Amino acid sequence: MRRLALATALVAGLVPVVHAVEGMWQPAQLPKIAAALRQHGLKLDPATLTDLTAYPMGAIVSLGGCTASFVSPDGLVVTNHHCGYGALQYNSTKEKNLIEQGFLAKTPAEELPGSPDMRVFVTEEIRDVTGEVTAKVTPTMTGKQRFDAIDRAEKELVKGCETDGYRCDVYVFHGGYSYQLIKQLEIKDVRLVYAPPESIGKFGGDIDNWMWPRHTGDFSYLRAYVSKDGKSATYSKDNVPYHPRHVIKLNPQGVNEGDYVMVVGYPGRTNRYRLAQEVQAAIDWTYPTQIGLYKEQLAIIDENGKANPDVTVKYANLVAGLNNYLKNFGGQLEGLRRADAVAVKRKQEADLDAWLRKQGGADNQALAKDIAELKAKLSAYQSTRARDAYLALVARTQLFSTGVRLARLAHERTKPDMERDAGYQQRDEVRIEGALKQMDRRYDARTDQALLSSALVHYVSLPQAQRLPALDAWLAGAADPSAISAKVAALYKGSHLGESERRLKWFKADDKAIAASDDSMLKLATAVLPDLKKIEDEGDARDGELARLRPRYMQAIIAWKESQGLPVYPDANSSLRVTFGNVQGVAPRDGVSYAPFTTVRGIVEKNTGEEPFNAPKAEIDAIKAKAFDGYASDKLGTLPVDFLADLDITGGNSGSPSLDAEGRLVGLAFDGNWESVSGDWLFNPQLNRSIQVDVRYMLWVMHHLDHADNLLKEMGVPAK
Amino acid sequence: MRRLALATALVAGLVPVVHAVEGMWQPAQLPKIAAALRQHGLKLDPATLTDLTAYPMGAIVSLGGCTASFVSPDGLVVTNHHCGYGALQYNSTKEKNLIEQGFLAKTPAEELPGSPDMRVFVTEEIRDVTGEVTAKVTPTMTGKQRFDAIDRAEKELVKGCETDGYRCDVYVFHGGYSYQLIKQLEIKDVRLVYAPPESIGKFGGDIDNWMWPRHTGDFSYLRAYVSKDGKSATYSKDNVPYHPRHVIKLNPQGVNEGDYVMVVGYPGRTNRYRLAQEVQAAIDWTYPTQIGLYKEQLAIIDENGKANPDVTVKYANLVAGLNNYLKNFGGQLEGLRRADAVAVKRKQEADLDAWLRKQGGADNQALAKDIAELKAKLSAYQSTRARDAYLALVARTQLFSTGVRLARLAHERTKPDMERDAGYQQRDEVRIEGALKQMDRRYDARTDQALLSSALVHYVSLPQAQRLPALDAWLAGAADPSAISAKVAALYKGSHLGESERRLKWFKADDKAIAASDDSMLKLATAVLPDLKKIEDEGDARDGELARLRPRYMQAIIAWKESQGLPVYPDANSSLRVTFGNVQGVAPRDGVSYAPFTTVRGIVEKNTGEEPFNAPKAEIDAIKAKAFDGYASDKLGTLPVDFLADLDITGGNSGSPSLDAEGRLVGLAFDGNWESVSGDWLFNPQLNRSIQVDVRYMLWVMHHLDHADNLLKEMGVPAK
Repeated sequence: MRRLALATALVAGLVPVVHAVEGMWQPAQLPKIAAALRQHGLKLDPATLTDLTAYPMGAIVSLGGCTASFVSPDGLVVTNHHCGYGALQYNSTKEKNLIEQGFLAKTPAEELPGSPDMRVFVTEEIRDVTGEVTAKVTPTMTGKQRFDAIDRAEKELVKGCETDGYRCDVYVFHGGYSYQLIKQLEIKDVRLVYAPPESIGKFGGDIDNWMWPRHTGDFSYLRAYVSKDGKSATYSKDNVPYHPRHVIKLNPQGVNEGDYVMVVGYPGRTNRYRLAQEVQAAIDWTYPTQIGLYKEQLAIIDENGKANPDVTVKYANLVAGLNNYLKNFGGQLEGLRRADAVAVKRKQEADLDAWLRKQGGADNQALAKDIAELKAKLSAYQSTRARDAYLALVARTQLFSTGVRLARLAHERTKPDMERDAGYQQRDEVRIEGALKQMDRRYDARTDQALLSSALVHYVSLPQAQRLPALDAWLAGAADPSAISAKVAALYKGSHLGESERRLKWFKADDKAIAASDDSMLKLATAVLPDLKKIEDEGDARDGELARLRPRYMQAIIAWKESQGLPVYPDANSSLRVTFGNVQGVAPRDGVSYAPFTTVRGIVEKNTGEEPFNAPKAEIDAIKAKAFDGYASDKLGTLPVDFLADLDITGGNSGSPSLDAEGRLVGLAFDGNWESVSGDWLFNPQLNRSIQVDVRYMLWVMHHLDHADNLLKEMGVPAK
Repeated sequence: MRRLALATALVAGLVPVVHAVEGMWQPAQLPKIAAALRQHGLKLDPATLTDLTAYPMGAIVSLGGCTASFVSPDGLVVTNHHCGYGALQYNSTKEKNLIEQGFLAKTPAEELPGSPDMRVFVTEEIRDVTGEVTAKVTPTMTGKQRFDAIDRAEKELVKGCETDGYRCDVYVFHGGYSYQLIKQLEIKDVRLVYAPPESIGKFGGDIDNWMWPRHTGDFSYLRAYVSKDGKSATYSKDNVPYHPRHVIKLNPQGVNEGDYVMVVGYPGRTNRYRLAQEVQAAIDWTYPTQIGLYKEQLAIIDENGKANPDVTVKYANLVAGLNNYLKNFGGQLEGLRRADAVAVKRKQEADLDAWLRKQGGADNQALAKDIAELKAKLSAYQSTRARDAYLALVARTQLFSTGVRLARLAHERTKPDMERDAGYQQRDEVRIEGALKQMDRRYDARTDQALLSSALVHYVSLPQAQRLPALDAWLAGAADPSAISAKVAALYKGSHLGESERRLKWFKADDKAIAASDDSMLKLATAVLPDLKKIEDEGDARDGELARLRPRYMQAIIAWKESQGLPVYPDANSSLRVTFGNVQGVAPRDGVSYAPFTTVRGIVEKNTGEEPFNAPKAEIDAIKAKAFDGYASDKLGTLPVDFLADLDITGGNSGSPSLDAEGRLVGLAFDGNWESVSGDWLFNPQLNRSIQVDVRYMLWVMHHLDHADNLLKEMGVPAK
């Protein structure tokens, strides 16, 4: 479940079917479901889980897109192999490929700096700010006015909260029903401590991605460093290990089938409360359209790669990402069809409607009216979905996006910081500069040019009313592929934004200098910016309208569920959540049963010697010799590798600790099964399963294969 | 398990690991394994199974590549849907597609004639003729002399046995350790009675082929007709239903997990007693080479199909066949690797060798010496494997093979019938004429030309010593693809064998007329024939040598196994066999379990509305309404579709009845699971499973969906 999975929520979710285990619960909600937690086996007092500064919550951190846990008082952090992948990539050279070989620092001095963008976020404070965010919102505001009022209030809250070394963000719950200001210590010096070789950490690769049975050792270790005075600081060799408030204890015995297990982490996004019509649109239009567009992009990259192998290297990440999406979208469509999701949602909406009518009263009537308005608005918004998809395609090409970003930054800089658009404030400039520096690694002019041409061919198919005047003026009537290609070729010929120094020069330039530039791409960007801004404003206006209507829908849902004694968990929004359940297998299809545990036997079975099924010879030999060093499971009679549980997770949960009934680490969540790909829309307790790497496999690999006994000792794992 | 699967034994098999259930037993062997039969649950007296004229053996027939059973006294026959497919194809028109719609004759008058090549073979006599076949063989004969002596003896036995309406064949067991003359009534008027629509009979299509869980209703009904005086006769409306000696009883209650089950049928070919070096060669060379060549052919057909859609239609069967082989070869390689087959065989050979040494004595020394010689010869034969593969590719192209076949037939006709080569005797002429007539349906000149050119490009890569002088003379030095294509283009331009009347004219022509022909293809064929004949003679000489050595190896195996009290079953050779075992699921991989039964729930799950997952709407509705009419299984609580058993079957077993402990029909075998694809080399009792369609599903489809109650009544199934 790569971070990409976060972005699959391109589209729209579902009325909650509150089952025993479904739910990404806010820690504060746990006392409400204490009975269910106990019934499933939790032995800790649920109340202890609401305190973010207590054990175990105080030990769980975000990596921004992944989750991790502190496992030693000296800032040692455990997460997924794919979450630490960037650090391996950053430190690899042609001569020394750490991804392939794995890496182990035998002493702190041997640890390697992570990539400059790596972060560990330690949540220190959560405060409800609903009143402050909505203070200036009035019922008569237009959508755009409401958006701006909320946006402004959020920026002010962030500004008032952020101090040196801390990052604050306002998180939106239930589409705007409530807002929380979350303050996190932003640790910037994150070092690579240990990762097994890719042949263990990514065993099965893309083929096994989203699949069970799984045999991936998806874990790695990082360490958080701060300045000597304990403050957040960028990398320096004088920095010292961060001392976390709490440290997750390990349970080297792991769990058995049926045992209680919970995952604590930062799930990114779900669509559980979307309307039937939004699900329908995703099935009928969004997924099929994106599948078509992605295939087209892949074909272009493939063609360019044949002529120039360099392209294959530079676009490997994008190609992997697009293929990953294609597989995901296929899974979404399959899952939504199998679940008959649209019918399920329709029924829920009808039931809610019937309940509201039955309750009667002006308040409920008003709710019903607002829900009807929400539905009408959502239908109306569909008129520009093709335009938005094609413009997104244009905007994703690199020379174009670089031009627009430079022009826009220069323009935003003319405003006071608080009035700048989100993403272009002072706090964002370091990130923008980093992206401009790194572009060379992933940019090939010919390929980028071909991708832009192909995006524009789609663009010109739009009705006149949806076109961008400035873009049309530049196209000067070019309408067929060859005419468009010629325009694009001239654009690339006249621009120097493909060159790193030029980009960085323009990054420092002001508004006027950019307006006066004769770089063809900057000229086009400057011309197009107002059109793009207008479309963005339309989008903001919609968001402003939805910020009024979605909370109304959620208010109705919450009231309805409360009347049945059921609490309602909010859709995932990258804030800290808890999901609980039990270790259990699944019967995914007629005639097929999957066991809850995979074992090392499966590694030998899958091993072909070729990537991604190329387990290290030492591992195969050890498995054949049953050299499990006491880490094997008595119940299974062998060493487990990964396990299934009926937990409700999604992208962003990668690296989350799986905790047992007493809150001890027994594994790390790293993926869901194929049937749970569509779980972002509709959780199915019969079919959806989270996949965890088993703590016993982690410890065995560390001890027996990689000799990382220094870390085992540091974590207090008894020596074998 | 399409008939094609028969031909996968291109290569070479294994020393027997005699497990409880492994084995394709000759009926006469059953009393020797009576204890095992009873232990697994057989209630019939094993001795009754040895009498081919008694129940149930007397009711089981061959269709030539498939197996079937008589199920009514009026010659009604049940077999697989894919075995009756030819009759559906033959009777389908654009307007009335019986494959798609299915077919039901409500009365005998509505039955449709099968395709002219359809046959029902009723085995009437089996006689050991080992003494007669080998009577004239002497120890000092060369390979070719031995081959000719055996060939001649076989022909004479066949000639002496065949009378009007009967077909006789000599079957070779254990590579020549024994020979049997089998006499079969050849029923030539076979009519189509009933088949469900393809959306049931071929549900899952090629995607599910060789796969479990399976939901295919792979069954259909035919009827055997004879002349009024009870003799074999070609189609005539005056013919009457054949009255079989016995009729298989149905058990409408079916079987449950763990129950005894046996399959009686005509398995085509296995390689269980091949040597380690033969397995190695299949893994290292044969399968990879054939995979490469088949992919090349598919690419050529695909390219021609883009230019001319007609090609796609004409070559659909070949394409399906090549793809089927590719999937099969992939499965073979995967299975042989997983089983570590070469190491298993090596160990068995070493154990046999040690046993022979331990026994001592001149006889055993001689056996060991002959086995060593067999190994040496098999190694030596590999020197021409590339030549044989490339020439087979050339010979498979249609214009070339037609030319060679016509020239050869004319040449053979100059000899007395008994001296003609096998396949070119009088008894074969009808079949040859039929093939010449049908060629148009599958022939496209441009595609055939491209396939021949590509085959010749491989041919010219052979060392000079392995080339055909006449073919080289015709090539006149053409060595690169374009020069070869030019020669081939001229060849096709100068030939009229692509025209049906011309072909049939030449079919009637004599040797001299063909030699004098100015048709370019006939000229080339006439010139090349002696070279091809020489290679065939070399092959015959090898076969003659192997006919001496393989039986020696088998003699050693049989003695070794007998010393352990283990009977040895012969490799499949299209003769009648019995395999027994129990209904049971399988755990194919770490973490995965397959149930022994699939149920109708899986049809709904797999149904997408698109071929091959397009179940009839009436079926989906009936399943959702649980309208099972009493055919459901109490134990499963629903209607089963297909079931697994640990039976040892292969291609040719398609359509075989699965009989319960009392010899009643409970299903029809139609495939094996993916893990059993490589079972032809090495049977793995843990992983290999046969797949049967369940009698309850058959009866339900017939009654509830297709209203074939006339047939249910005819079979004596109680009305629902």
